[in-house]
Amino acid sequence: MTTTVEVAVRPPYPVRIGPGVLAEAAEHLPGRRVALVSDTHVAPLYADATEERLVAEGRTVLRLVVPAGERSKSVSVWDDLLRALARAGFGRDDAVLALGGGVVGDLAGFVAASYARGIAVVQAPTSLLAMADAAIGGKTGVNLPEGKNLVGAFWQPRAVLMDVSTLRTLPPEVFLHGAVEVFKHGLLADPELAAAVLDGRLAQDGDPAELTRWVAASARVKADVVGRDEREEGEARATLNLGHTVAHALEAVTAHALTHGEAVAWGLLYAAHLSRLDADARGRGGSDWTELARRLVATVRPTPPPELAWAELEPYLGLDKKNRAGRRRWVVAHAPGEARLATDVPAASERAAWAAFVDDVTTFRARLGADATLHGERGDA
Amino acid sequence: MTTTVEVAVRPPYPVRIGPGVLAEAAEHLPGRRVALVSDTHVAPLYADATEERLVAEGRTVLRLVVPAGERSKSVSVWDDLLRALARAGFGRDDAVLALGGGVVGDLAGFVAASYARGIAVVQAPTSLLAMADAAIGGKTGVNLPEGKNLVGAFWQPRAVLMDVSTLRTLPPEVFLHGAVEVFKHGLLADPELAAAVLDGRLAQDGDPAELTRWVAASARVKADVVGRDEREEGEARATLNLGHTVAHALEAVTAHALTHGEAVAWGLLYAAHLSRLDADARGRGGSDWTELARRLVATVRPTPPPELAWAELEPYLGLDKKNRAGRRRWVVAHAPGEARLATDVPAASERAAWAAFVDDVTTFRARLGADATLHGERGDA
Repeated sequence: MTTTVEVAVRPPYPVRIGPGVLAEAAEHLPGRRVALVSDTHVAPLYADATEERLVAEGRTVLRLVVPAGERSKSVSVWDDLLRALARAGFGRDDAVLALGGGVVGDLAGFVAASYARGIAVVQAPTSLLAMADAAIGGKTGVNLPEGKNLVGAFWQPRAVLMDVSTLRTLPPEVFLHGAVEVFKHGLLADPELAAAVLDGRLAQDGDPAELTRWVAASARVKADVVGRDEREEGEARATLNLGHTVAHALEAVTAHALTHGEAVAWGLLYAAHLSRLDADARGRGGSDWTELARRLVATVRPTPPPELAWAELEPYLGLDKKNRAGRRRWVVAHAPGEARLATDVPAASERAAWAAFVDDVTTFRARLGADATLHGERGDA
Repeated sequence: MTTTVEVAVRPPYPVRIGPGVLAEAAEHLPGRRVALVSDTHVAPLYADATEERLVAEGRTVLRLVVPAGERSKSVSVWDDLLRALARAGFGRDDAVLALGGGVVGDLAGFVAASYARGIAVVQAPTSLLAMADAAIGGKTGVNLPEGKNLVGAFWQPRAVLMDVSTLRTLPPEVFLHGAVEVFKHGLLADPELAAAVLDGRLAQDGDPAELTRWVAASARVKADVVGRDEREEGEARATLNLGHTVAHALEAVTAHALTHGEAVAWGLLYAAHLSRLDADARGRGGSDWTELARRLVATVRPTPPPELAWAELEPYLGLDKKNRAGRRRWVVAHAPGEARLATDVPAASERAAWAAFVDDVTTFRARLGADATLHGERGDA
């Protein structure tokens, strides 16, 4: 039941999806040495078996485990990893295996991109979020105190291995947060995929074939866009940022108290309101997807963002990498499947969308009621 | 008297050589904002005029001046510069102008390569060394404590501006150290260029047209190799490393007490001995260029390296980026113009070449005599 999706960049590379594909790692890793980069959540579960198999295939493995969490996506941890590779004598023909979620993939990918001016990397995402998003497309990097993902490189992997059996060990809320990016891909290009997220057909404890089906469907949407616009030079790839402008700002302003998936769920709700108001302002009809976004939030139950005035969020929007010539660029979708970049969204629409969004957040916060404490206890997850 | 050499990568870019070409900077810089990166030696001489012209052309200039010297080629300084760009709100369509020697070019180039996953850079080398070598070809990066240039990216500039009028303000010994890379290019592909270094036709106080001629000749050799092998995947580009394996090790082992040019002069002398002994060991004739290398050292008068046993140097050779599968790879040239990569140089030849090299160093040290103190006073230049 393994599926392959090809990413048509030069050179092209395969995304392998299915239970057990992690066992293929050595086939895609050149060189004699492999830096197996993982984190304190994932390494205890999958690093031993992965390392044993690599050693059986004749590789020397340097295991590098970083603390789980966004804080490891820093210049300082990246520097530590590079120095570990240097001390182990890594050369240009050795390679990196990124085993973990999005943080590990971005961090280890940037290590591979920059060690000796670039060595091979295989991405082995173990979270639904990383499978849906970060593992495909070669975006790597770390954060600066000034903002997320401000440092990095486009560095395509040799292969992406999505072993869906690793999804079973995810905390349930982390699986749900990952489903947010799957939903976004559905919204962009595959309505059935979006429906599968909302009606529970994409389920953590589902049949492995069903999991493979939806993860592959999501990978197809992402791979298609990356193949058309590898380095985000055109508009195609930027549309993947639907919901992300506000999401990145929420992550920054809360010092990452919201997970990426939670922030994107809220960001999509904001984008839905902005898209609706932008369609109205232009006197265009459109297929309002505000309700779909509300259903996503109800399904995923993200931690509510703090109460913020638009003016408090705005400074964090200025650093968004989609901006050109100092103008803010939004991804809006007047209807599902019609996302596009807009540079001319009036400031009044931005603020009106924020007001509508804040109303929705207030409703959800009230509805969550007693649960809010539970969510608060997750701390800096 | 301005000359243009094209570097045939995709997209191709021009190298403009001549007195005054620095004035063209704005033509090659996209975006509204320019980070003018320079150092404490070069900025006082050329930053004001350059900045004024950029401002006159409608650019906002962020001037970033780092301490002169190899120590600025560090992760820490690179991180500081990235954060300065972030605080100034740089976006993907803004750009970097690297104004200075090789350290500034490598450092600012890597800032451009990694900020927001890559922004445009124009290289404006102001030293002969940087004109001859680092400014063309897109190699960017910083050092780790474990070794030189272990972190970086291939990131081609939009243009390279070699304003030969800046060469007049170089300290004379720094000009000579730069002439070492020009000599190497002559040795690789242009005998008249090598002769021009040794017979003084390449002179710091020479006619600007003559300076332009030789700087352009050197740029042609480098650009030709880069065009054939942009990312050092084949052997062509690796041959530019003639003399550099031992040079990098000498720089590391002396904590950069030797300048790059000085280290390469000695590295070329070692390479000449190794090439001669390798030709002998294979029972091949060759055109021994040991005497040319000795003349180079006599012309350039580099600070002698410390007395070192081969075994002390060897650990530093293991990290060389040319190595593959743990095997040491040397660039040898059995005759001028015939440089190639060799993976099978016997350890006995390596050691015999070192013995011959040490004899030569001893001779030079004795000949330098009273001068040695003078050189010693340059300290960590």
